Amino acid sequence: MGRLTTRTPVTRITLNDDDSAVRRRADTLVVEEPLEIRIVGEALTVTMRTPGHDLELAAGFLVSEGVIAASGDLRSAIHCGGPGTGPAAATPLLTIGPAAVGTPASTENTYNVLDIALAPGLEPLITDIARNFYTTSSCGVCGTASIEAIEKQSRYDVATDAAAVDAAVITTLPDTLRAGQAVFEKTGGLHAAALFDAASGELLVLREDVGRHNAVDKVVGWAVLEDRLPLTGTVLQVSGRASFELVQKAVMAGIPILSAVSAPSSLAVELATASGLTLVGFVRGSSMNVYSRPDRVRVPAPSRL
Amino acid sequence: MGRLTTRTPVTRITLNDDDSAVRRRADTLVVEEPLEIRIVGEALTVTMRTPGHDLELAAGFLVSEGVIAASGDLRSAIHCGGPGTGPAAATPLLTIGPAAVGTPASTENTYNVLDIALAPGLEPLITDIARNFYTTSSCGVCGTASIEAIEKQSRYDVATDAAAVDAAVITTLPDTLRAGQAVFEKTGGLHAAALFDAASGELLVLREDVGRHNAVDKVVGWAVLEDRLPLTGTVLQVSGRASFELVQKAVMAGIPILSAVSAPSSLAVELATASGLTLVGFVRGSSMNVYSRPDRVRVPAPSRL
Repeated sequence: MGRLTTRTPVTRITLNDDDSAVRRRADTLVVEEPLEIRIVGEALTVTMRTPGHDLELAAGFLVSEGVIAASGDLRSAIHCGGPGTGPAAATPLLTIGPAAVGTPASTENTYNVLDIALAPGLEPLITDIARNFYTTSSCGVCGTASIEAIEKQSRYDVATDAAAVDAAVITTLPDTLRAGQAVFEKTGGLHAAALFDAASGELLVLREDVGRHNAVDKVVGWAVLEDRLPLTGTVLQVSGRASFELVQKAVMAGIPILSAVSAPSSLAVELATASGLTLVGFVRGSSMNVYSRPDRVRVPAPSRL
Repeated sequence: MGRLTTRTPVTRITLNDDDSAVRRRADTLVVEEPLEIRIVGEALTVTMRTPGHDLELAAGFLVSEGVIAASGDLRSAIHCGGPGTGPAAATPLLTIGPAAVGTPASTENTYNVLDIALAPGLEPLITDIARNFYTTSSCGVCGTASIEAIEKQSRYDVATDAAAVDAAVITTLPDTLRAGQAVFEKTGGLHAAALFDAASGELLVLREDVGRHNAVDKVVGWAVLEDRLPLTGTVLQVSGRASFELVQKAVMAGIPILSAVSAPSSLAVELATASGLTLVGFVRGSSMNVYSRPDRVRVPAPSRL
């Protein structure tokens, strides 16, 4: 796992009426480090993430921003050194055609800066997804404006996706997610996102991160690097709550069904409804809530006596 | 509660071997809406938040950015209309001296844009807290650079805070937090943050939000509007995990003790250690982990037989 986890000394206190205990011991922490994503040397964003799958994270982020949709949209990607430096002496994660040009860095490579070159003609138009909400707004910053912005951006129409999933399959997804969370087991500190085939329930990919939006970006990034976009016929299962941002990422990647262990927000339901995405929440035991497009969730007909 | 929650129809599915049930019913959702914070008409940031306590949210955000430290640093605050408009016909949340000047908006007021005027001489230097990490960095984007940036920014030295808290008090904080979470009870969808007096365990303020960073900003904003900064002798209890960002916000507000129900990240522990903040995690039942400065957590001496 390498840099995914780290060990640290911790003071463990257990209170008891007659014998409280204070012990020093080692504890395993999930690693959180900043990642700066650059486009040919220019900073695009910085996110606090768990190291690993950085190229997927960046690729998924660029899908969410509406910049790329296929592996061919990326020309090169390399972990480079400090500010103002070009690609350092790291092995490129991806090279398609000519690599990004830059001066080798003299500073230590932290593997926390990822420099990407896009295919000719592509450029990131959006530097801050939150800020973009109001640029297309005619009514101030409101949910409606946010939803309109997303609807304009997405190149896929999830509303027409013919996917269907058995309710019985959905009830198994949280356990599959938890079973696949190697790092969570050690640290208790990670969110997870996983993509499943809606028809078979087969797990396609699972990613973990301190940030749940990053876990989803890594999943979507895996898919774009595999040239699987749009992700028709899939279910995205997330470990926590369903926010507006997660629904947005699903819609931008063409995922028709999003399932969350916990509660959705009002704006998540509004965007799901407007986009025609099936949003499932509170998947616990044998029950769930379906907030939009319940027609995609199949329930067995009651047996007749 | 007004806009804090909203009702929506939901399809509730419960699977049983012999009689699965599909019912339509109403469900309560937590409201998520964007808030744009402006400084005299210029957009500073947009955050997805639960409406309510917007002035506190903005004030706490400005404390985290190192811009303000007292209520007198704010001159006025008003919910205004759409983009390009000035303050609309909303009641100012705060007016100290001359209000910000602007043209009344003709668009509907969504109460999702908050325009703030600062006292003369103050201006927000940082437009994106994440982006600021690398501007002072000499080693690329890394945890060390992030920590150095925060250490430079904070006007308070939490390391010298003489606060102490009984371990027995800490074990009660998660329950107090949960008991105070009116909206969580209805929706299951909110993070919470609450400030306690370290010596007495008294609850000072509790705030909820879809974003945990927003819940903390609202708590710190409450404190700055009450002119209580630095928050010496207090404990900040949060409902989830302890990230770098939450430790950062505590340090910027002069809070010496941060307690989280769940796991901290590596960078949270590093920043807490470097800043001299007491970081407590995994507060469950009668036990907890103390990751830094355990000297502030008092454990009763074992009784001698």
